[in-house]
Amino acid sequence: MQTKFLLSKKDVKKKNFSDMKYDGTQLRGHFAYFDFKILGDSAVSWIGPCDVNFDHMVDGEDFLEGSAIRGSEMVHFIIEFFDQSLFSGVVLQRLFANIVRDVIYELSQLKNIKLDRSGDDLYFQKRKLSISIATKSPMSTLVHFAVNVRTEDVPVPAVGLKELKVNEVEFAKRCLSLLKLEYEDCQKATWKVRPVL
Amino acid sequence: MQTKFLLSKKDVKKKNFSDMKYDGTQLRGHFAYFDFKILGDSAVSWIGPCDVNFDHMVDGEDFLEGSAIRGSEMVHFIIEFFDQSLFSGVVLQRLFANIVRDVIYELSQLKNIKLDRSGDDLYFQKRKLSISIATKSPMSTLVHFAVNVRTEDVPVPAVGLKELKVNEVEFAKRCLSLLKLEYEDCQKATWKVRPVL
Amino acid sequence: MQTKFLLSKKDVKKKNFSDMKYDGTQLRGHFAYFDFKILGDSAVSWIGPCDVNFDHMVDGEDFLEGSAIRGSEMVHFIIEFFDQSLFSGVVLQRLFANIVRDVIYELSQLKNIKLDRSGDDLYFQKRKLSISIATKSPMSTLVHFAVNVRTEDVPVPAVGLKELKVNEVEFAKRCLSLLKLEYEDCQKATWKVRPVL
Amino acid sequence: MQTKFLLSKKDVKKKNFSDMKYDGTQLRGHFAYFDFKILGDSAVSWIGPCDVNFDHMVDGEDFLEGSAIRGSEMVHFIIEFFDQSLFSGVVLQRLFANIVRDVIYELSQLKNIKLDRSGDDLYFQKRKLSISIATKSPMSTLVHFAVNVRTEDVPVPAVGLKELKVNEVEFAKRCLSLLKLEYEDCQKATWKVRPVL
Amino acid sequence: MQTKFLLSKKDVKKKNFSDMKYDGTQLRGHFAYFDFKILGDSAVSWIGPCDVNFDHMVDGEDFLEGSAIRGSEMVHFIIEFFDQSLFSGVVLQRLFANIVRDVIYELSQLKNIKLDRSGDDLYFQKRKLSISIATKSPMSTLVHFAVNVRTEDVPVPAVGLKELKVNEVEFAKRCLSLLKLEYEDCQKATWKVRPVL
Amino acid sequence: MQTKFLLSKKDVKKKNFSDMKYDGTQLRGHFAYFDFKILGDSAVSWIGPCDVNFDHMVDGEDFLEGSAIRGSEMVHFIIEFFDQSLFSGVVLQRLFANIVRDVIYELSQLKNIKLDRSGDDLYFQKRKLSISIATKSPMSTLVHFAVNVRTEDVPVPAVGLKELKVNEVEFAKRCLSLLKLEYEDCQKATWKVRPVL
Repeated sequence: MQTKFLLSKKDVKKKNFSDMKYDGTQLRGHFAYFDFKILGDSAVSWIGPCDVNFDHMVDGEDFLEGSAIRGSEMVHFIIEFFDQSLFSGVVLQRLFANIVRDVIYELSQLKNIKLDRSGDDLYFQKRKLSISIATKSPMSTLVHFAVNVRTEDVPVPAVGLKELKVNEVEFAKRCLSLLKLEYEDCQKATWKVRPVL
Repeated sequence: MQTKFLLSKKDVKKKNFSDMKYDGTQLRGHFAYFDFKILGDSAVSWIGPCDVNFDHMVDGEDFLEGSAIRGSEMVHFIIEFFDQSLFSGVVLQRLFANIVRDVIYELSQLKNIKLDRSGDDLYFQKRKLSISIATKSPMSTLVHFAVNVRTEDVPVPAVGLKELKVNEVEFAKRCLSLLKLEYEDCQKATWKVRPVL
Repeated sequence: MQTKFLLSKKDVKKKNFSDMKYDGTQLRGHFAYFDFKILGDSAVSWIGPCDVNFDHMVDGEDFLEGSAIRGSEMVHFIIEFFDQSLFSGVVLQRLFANIVRDVIYELSQLKNIKLDRSGDDLYFQKRKLSISIATKSPMSTLVHFAVNVRTEDVPVPAVGLKELKVNEVEFAKRCLSLLKLEYEDCQKATWKVRPVL
Repeated sequence: MQTKFLLSKKDVKKKNFSDMKYDGTQLRGHFAYFDFKILGDSAVSWIGPCDVNFDHMVDGEDFLEGSAIRGSEMVHFIIEFFDQSLFSGVVLQRLFANIVRDVIYELSQLKNIKLDRSGDDLYFQKRKLSISIATKSPMSTLVHFAVNVRTEDVPVPAVGLKELKVNEVEFAKRCLSLLKLEYEDCQKATWKVRPVL
Repeated sequence: MQTKFLLSKKDVKKKNFSDMKYDGTQLRGHFAYFDFKILGDSAVSWIGPCDVNFDHMVDGEDFLEGSAIRGSEMVHFIIEFFDQSLFSGVVLQRLFANIVRDVIYELSQLKNIKLDRSGDDLYFQKRKLSISIATKSPMSTLVHFAVNVRTEDVPVPAVGLKELKVNEVEFAKRCLSLLKLEYEDCQKATWKVRPVL
Repeated sequence: MQTKFLLSKKDVKKKNFSDMKYDGTQLRGHFAYFDFKILGDSAVSWIGPCDVNFDHMVDGEDFLEGSAIRGSEMVHFIIEFFDQSLFSGVVLQRLFANIVRDVIYELSQLKNIKLDRSGDDLYFQKRKLSISIATKSPMSTLVHFAVNVRTEDVPVPAVGLKELKVNEVEFAKRCLSLLKLEYEDCQKATWKVRPVL
């Protein structure tokens, strides 16, 4: 798995992504390849606003409820991997939620904070810290995971990394690094086990 | 997913499992069905010793290193699910390690203990709390996960639920219950998401 | 498998389906979920006209021959199931044709009628009773099966449930109920069989 | 799909099958290829006794209940096809039960007999006419379907083709011929349908 | 596998393909079925110009580099097969490149020419002879392979069948015939091999 | 893909392979991992005799004909890769036959020799140069490919690398190196292509 943190708008020369706003169109097959020449399994992260167009809302629940998906500043992750099922993507998404929680525990300057995970969402004192969805493109499995930095514009009670005293750049890089380790370790685990009857 | 906690030896009438010792032969397709008439995706748990026969060691690493897999009393889980890949089994196994950790945090009478997860293993102060493997039978994906209750006979520095002040029966039932919720929620997540391009 | 019979136009609040006309657009992934909040494997039935838009004709044969697919009143079934192949969808479609035939034998007030099945089509005295197609969406396998109630507008020699003295509402409900039993029984059959060499 | 009816013991030169008794070992991958040089998807039929060894009982239900699977003379079918799921095998097995029923209706010299199908079993007046199982070998999907000719030795209330006034050789050949048509038509159906969204 | 060589514009009655120019839109699921009524696995060939519209450029590398894909006269092959992976399509594409090379060696009136294969491309004295891509439609795996006849309009140093003294019609037919043999032989090879542990 | 050439008996410390004779038992899942700690997709090569035990003959044709598979000295290759179909294994096997041929052309000190490929076999002047089989283990796809060095003990008219003036060690290493390039290039090709409709 290759990982890349897009430091600033200079990293992103594509006309249609120069504002680094996640609007749902980034959740597509080969996003990392066609926009950043990263080939194969990948995880890309950047910091930017979030405002998902209704047409690009892939979560049926949000769609049915007409929920707004919005935030003024979030750490975004787009994870893409090939030749795996949607089910494995959903489970990986939840494993990544645990990794995100561990990284916040590790980096936060607050003592003994406690985050709750409910499915693919993280909460701090019942306020929402993250959004996420796992889906399929014709050739790959995709996950979008985003964590609030600040909470302006978030349409529900929310918390962000600023309040949790976590540096967002350090956070993004640490999450990418742990995800890569975990993902590659999972792959290796499939190569070294004997079948049973 | 159906779950079952095998309370005592009376629950297990099978001649070849009346001692409730996990010896590796329990990690096979349809274990829950042929031994306990539980049909379909399942998770079964019981408390008993562990001594894996070298012939039933499915982890290539242990096999190559000739590691002993042993414990005098452990909470065992056998998880089986159909029509999914080994990769999804490995990721689920690691998600379950997180669930186990959360249950220990929830049930322990000690304050502010901290468990570390490394792949599919849990540690407390660098001592090993659990063992686990994910594999395939011809028709299903299987996970064995076991957590020390006591640590006699464990061939490496170890810790158990007794020392962590966690009731092992309560623990087993709570883990089964959270796993069932998580597993079924993951399945549902695959049915409600729209594909992308 | 969840099943639902849409009794009347009141059940269907969606603007674009309030006329209950099957025009081919209902044969899409998540139709039951996005329109009726039925999650997972499902079968939905209703009574309404049929007029398939040429652009939504998925059967290559009809498409190549420019056949009209039309009827003034039919019992429609949309069956959707996840994680299975198109081939299994085609075979299930034909099994469902047999179920439909059995239900007509059971409910008809005529004595000793005989229906012929040819592939996925049912005939009575060489007149066409039904139309059907099985296909794939990106995430599911889909079957449309429709049985004439009356035969006005049908572009080929046809027969309907009225002539066969079968109550169409009773028919729809009985078919849904038997399909659900059959489908779930097939699933169970895959969980209880031992592999061979 | 290639089909073959093994007329007599002369057709079967294999030492270990010269008695034409189905004992469960015939339900294995490549049976048609290794014993009769029939390559690829196939259906083979013969007439002979049935006595399934407990070790070769693949149906978990029979195994758990210790049921005997036995008959003095049955028409046997072994269907094998490659690159398809067990689920599709189970559905095909039930579609074949319908074909068998249609052939009996067609060939029987009795008037207006009625057979009931329950899952993969056929009954006449609550007496059992057939047995069947679908399973997987490492490389193929397999179905065994057998229909009583006579009912001696059958351990449950039973009926046979003799009583139903059906010639067993004609029956076997007609079933093979219709199965081949159905199977190939199902395959073609998967090649001519357009996907939907 | 069915094969067809489209001799001339008369063979192609479709309005949108009467000029026999490959523009990328021919690389789609069911091209052979919807345009020429060839059902199932197929290979179709014709001779015509090539000018791939940027919107139909499926090779990410060409797309990223904005390469033109163009030629005044090429022998085109569209290969489609069902129920196989993209990986197998890529490997088959390269095997086909070897077949193409062998056919040129066989038919060329020049002595001892040597073609180099690099991935899916063939070269003669560092000049490009062919272009190719393998991809997926929702229901099939597809390969486009095209060999220059003449080299006008080719945007890179190129060579064609004319210069290699190979008759292009004979070439197309021989390639189709060898591909069919190879493909069917590969299929058979999957039906006759025993699994290992 | 990791590759390894086993230079001599010292490289192979395993009791049951110290004679470096290929007897068919080397064609098993995880051979490279359990014997040489090579994890994941791999190709291993060595030089040694060949005498395949009838019980380990996986090619149905050889098995049915009772063919002996034998040679006094061959260059052996065991290729293993995960998560791919048997069909892709068969196609890769034939692509590898082409690679082997190219390497012989490259390394031979004879001028203008010509090898013929028929399926997965290579011939020189109608004499057999190689044997090969592709199969599946429960978790991987496997290929054995072996090329005669000398031809003593070969039960059919044969030719070897000695006669073709090819150094066998150089040959083995060059084949491994080109296979690795080809395999990884094929994988990359699956990650960079856009799907079509």
